[in-house]
Amino acid sequence: MTLEISATAPYTYPNSQAAFARARKVIPSGIYGHQGPTEGVYVPQSAFPLFSARAEGSRFWDVDGNEYIDYMCGYGPNVLGYGDPDVEAAAAAQRQLEDVVTIPSSIMVDFAELLVDTVASADWAFFAKNGGDTTTLAVMTARAATRRKKIVFVNGFYHGVAPWTQKLDYPGVIEEDVAHNLYVDFNDLPALRTLFSEHRGEIAGLIAQPYMHGNFVDNELPAAGYWQEVRRLCDEYGVVLIIDDVRAGFRLDLAGSDHYFGFKADLVCFCKALANGYNVSALCGRESLKDTVSSLSYTGSYWMSAVPFAAGIATITKLRELDAPAQFVRLGTELTTGLVSAAADNGFTLVSSGAPALFYLRIADDNSLMLHQEWVAECVQRGIFLTSHHNHFLNAALTSADIGRTLEVAHEAFGIVRSNHPDLAPSV
Amino acid sequence: MTLEISATAPYTYPNSQAAFARARKVIPSGIYGHQGPTEGVYVPQSAFPLFSARAEGSRFWDVDGNEYIDYMCGYGPNVLGYGDPDVEAAAAAQRQLEDVVTIPSSIMVDFAELLVDTVASADWAFFAKNGGDTTTLAVMTARAATRRKKIVFVNGFYHGVAPWTQKLDYPGVIEEDVAHNLYVDFNDLPALRTLFSEHRGEIAGLIAQPYMHGNFVDNELPAAGYWQEVRRLCDEYGVVLIIDDVRAGFRLDLAGSDHYFGFKADLVCFCKALANGYNVSALCGRESLKDTVSSLSYTGSYWMSAVPFAAGIATITKLRELDAPAQFVRLGTELTTGLVSAAADNGFTLVSSGAPALFYLRIADDNSLMLHQEWVAECVQRGIFLTSHHNHFLNAALTSADIGRTLEVAHEAFGIVRSNHPDLAPSV
Repeated sequence: MTLEISATAPYTYPNSQAAFARARKVIPSGIYGHQGPTEGVYVPQSAFPLFSARAEGSRFWDVDGNEYIDYMCGYGPNVLGYGDPDVEAAAAAQRQLEDVVTIPSSIMVDFAELLVDTVASADWAFFAKNGGDTTTLAVMTARAATRRKKIVFVNGFYHGVAPWTQKLDYPGVIEEDVAHNLYVDFNDLPALRTLFSEHRGEIAGLIAQPYMHGNFVDNELPAAGYWQEVRRLCDEYGVVLIIDDVRAGFRLDLAGSDHYFGFKADLVCFCKALANGYNVSALCGRESLKDTVSSLSYTGSYWMSAVPFAAGIATITKLRELDAPAQFVRLGTELTTGLVSAAADNGFTLVSSGAPALFYLRIADDNSLMLHQEWVAECVQRGIFLTSHHNHFLNAALTSADIGRTLEVAHEAFGIVRSNHPDLAPSV
Repeated sequence: MTLEISATAPYTYPNSQAAFARARKVIPSGIYGHQGPTEGVYVPQSAFPLFSARAEGSRFWDVDGNEYIDYMCGYGPNVLGYGDPDVEAAAAAQRQLEDVVTIPSSIMVDFAELLVDTVASADWAFFAKNGGDTTTLAVMTARAATRRKKIVFVNGFYHGVAPWTQKLDYPGVIEEDVAHNLYVDFNDLPALRTLFSEHRGEIAGLIAQPYMHGNFVDNELPAAGYWQEVRRLCDEYGVVLIIDDVRAGFRLDLAGSDHYFGFKADLVCFCKALANGYNVSALCGRESLKDTVSSLSYTGSYWMSAVPFAAGIATITKLRELDAPAQFVRLGTELTTGLVSAAADNGFTLVSSGAPALFYLRIADDNSLMLHQEWVAECVQRGIFLTSHHNHFLNAALTSADIGRTLEVAHEAFGIVRSNHPDLAPSV
C-alpha cells in the first residue's frame, strides 16, 4: 500500500545527532530556545535536523548534506533570501571602513532617516540589538512619560524574554517582575474598555502584536474597527500604544503593521526583518515621546555597530524596490491554497491562518496536534522545512518553482500520513 | 608664552557637528548612551569628534579626516585592533557559508567547547547578544536555583540597562524593579557578613565586577583575601556568586577575571572582548547550574548567528597565542607611567588606577574634575583619544611607537593646561 506513496527516501541525521551529543556537554539544553529540539512539545527530535552547514537564497543545507526549502527564515531575519547579494555587498563595503568604533559611524543617521521616511508612525529611530531591547525600552518609555506603572498585555503575547514579559510560573521570574501586568483578550473591546475604566490613571501603556501570531493556536487578524477603537481608547485614557512589530514588521507593510491595519501606534518595535539577518533592532516612535526616550539610561556595547546599519539600509531599500509585501501575499496565497488542496486530496482538513507572509498551519482532524506533527515531520524529512505549531516566514528569494516542489512533497507527505492512519475518518 | 607649547594645531569638527545636527532630528539625543555627548558631565562637546568614518588597528578617523590613537576601543570590543586580519578572515569564511539560519551552525558547539577549555570556572557556555542579556540570565538563574528573591549589588556597579539593574530615581524604573536589591560597599567584608546574616535564606545571588572599574572614581582592586572570603560566605549562605566580566573579561586573564583574582565564580558574564567587535555575549558557569539555565525561557532572534561564533573562536585563539593580557600589562604600565611623568613635568599629579589594561586617570589637583576634562580635551584635539571619567581599554594592535606619540601629545597637553592656569599651585 505504501509502495506508490514513498517516492522520496526520507532524510537521516547522523551528523546532527553527533553534534548534538557534543552540544549537550557544553551548552545548556544543547540548543536552547525555539531553535532547539523540544521533544513532545513541537516535533519528534529524530525527524528533524539540528545543525545547519550552509544557506543560500530560499534554502539551507544541514550538517548531513540534506537540502531544505526553508519556510522559517531563521525565525524571521531572512526576508530577502539567505546571503542576499545586495545586502552582502553593502555590509562588506561598510566592514572595509569600520564597524564598532568608540564613536558611531554617521551611517547610523542615514539609517534613522530612512526609517523615518519609510515607517508611517516614526518621527525618530533608536537602535539596539534584540527585539526585547526595544520592547523593554518601549515599556520604560511609557512608564517614564505617564509616571504610571501598569502595562496591558494581550493574552497569547510574546514580547521577548525579559522578566517583565514572562509569566509568574516560569523559572527565574518573581512576582514583582509582573506585579503591574494586566491582561486582556485580543479583539475584545468590551473587556478593554472595562480594564481601562477600572484602572483609570494607572495604565502607562498597552503593548500588543499587530495581530495574534501566537503558537499552538490559529492566528487571528484584528476585527474591523478594532485597532481604531483601541487607538481612541488609548488617547482617551492617556495610555501609550506600543506595537510589537518584531515578527510581522516589513512583511505586511513597509510603513509598519500599524499602517497596514489603518492606525498609528505611539511606539513601534522592529527587529528580525530589519537587516536580513544582520544584528540590529529599532524602536520607532512619535515626536512627543522623543525627549522621554532621551531621558532614559539605555545603551549597549554593540548598539552603534556600523555594518548592520549598512545592511539595514540595503534591506529596506530592496524590500521597497521589490514591493516585497505584495510578493509575499501572492506567493503565500499560492502556497497555502495549494497546501489546503493537497490535504483535501488525501482526506484531511488543513487550516491556514494569519497573514500569507507569516502563515500558520493546523490539521483540523486531530485535536491532539499529533497528526499535524506527523505530517510536518514527513515534509521536513523530504526537504521542506516547515514547523509544527509556530507561524512560518516567507522570504523574497522564494520562487514559484520552490512552491511547486513544496506542494509535491506536501502531497506525498499527506499521502503517507493517510496510509499510516487508514482507519481515521476522512474529513468531508 | 604659549608659542612654544602649541606645536600641534588642534582639530576642528565641522562635519561631526553637521552630522550631529541631522542626528538630533531623527534619533533621541542624537547619539544616546555613553557614546554620545553629555555636555557638562564628561567633556565639552565642542572639543570632541562625534562620528567616525574609518578604523584600523589602534586608530580611527573621524568624519573630518582627523586621526586618533584610540584608548577606548569601542568601549571594549576592540581587543585585537580594529579589523584584525585573522578575525576578519575567519568571519568572512563563515559568512560565505551561513550566519543566521533556522537551525544553528555547529560552529556554536566549537565556540562553547573553546570557552569551556579557556575559562577556568566554565563547564558550559550560553550565548546571547548583549552583556546585559547575560547579567539578566545570571540573576534569573540564581533566583530559579535558590527559589529566593534578593540580589546583592556592590555600590558603584554597572550591569547593563535592564530595569532590575537601574536605580529607582532613573526615568522608567519602578520600585518593583529594584525591590529585592541589596547594596554593599566593595572590599567591605564586615558589611557583607552583616548583610548575609540579616537576610539568611533570602539572598539568591551576589553580582559584582571583578574589581571596581566605575566612572568618576579611582578604580579599586580587591584587597588581599577579599574574593576568597566572599566565595566562602556565598558557599556558607547558599548564594550564587556572579561575576560580571563584561568589561574586564579577556583583558586581565584569558581564564577569566575570577581566575586572575584566585577564586571561582558560579556564573561569569562575558561580552565586549569576546569576538573583537562581532556581536556576541556569553554566560559561562558551573555544571551544578546547567540544568537550571536549561529550565529558563530565554532566547533571541540572532542569538545563534554563526559569524560572531567564528570571530569569537579566532579572537580567543589569537589572544591566547599573543598572551595578550601580559602584553596589556607591559604596554599599559609603560603608558600610565609615562603619563604620570608628563603630568609631573608640568606640575600636575595624575593618578592612574585599576588594571593597566583598563587604566583610569584623574588629575588630583582639582576636585571639580574640570582640569582633568581640559587636559583630556587637549589630547583628543591632537589625536589621542582618551576619555574623562571612565576607564580606558587597550588593544593588542597598540605599539610602543603609538605610546611614544601618545606621551608626546600628553606632555604638550599638560603644558597647555599649565599655561591656561599659571596661578594654580603646582603639585609637589
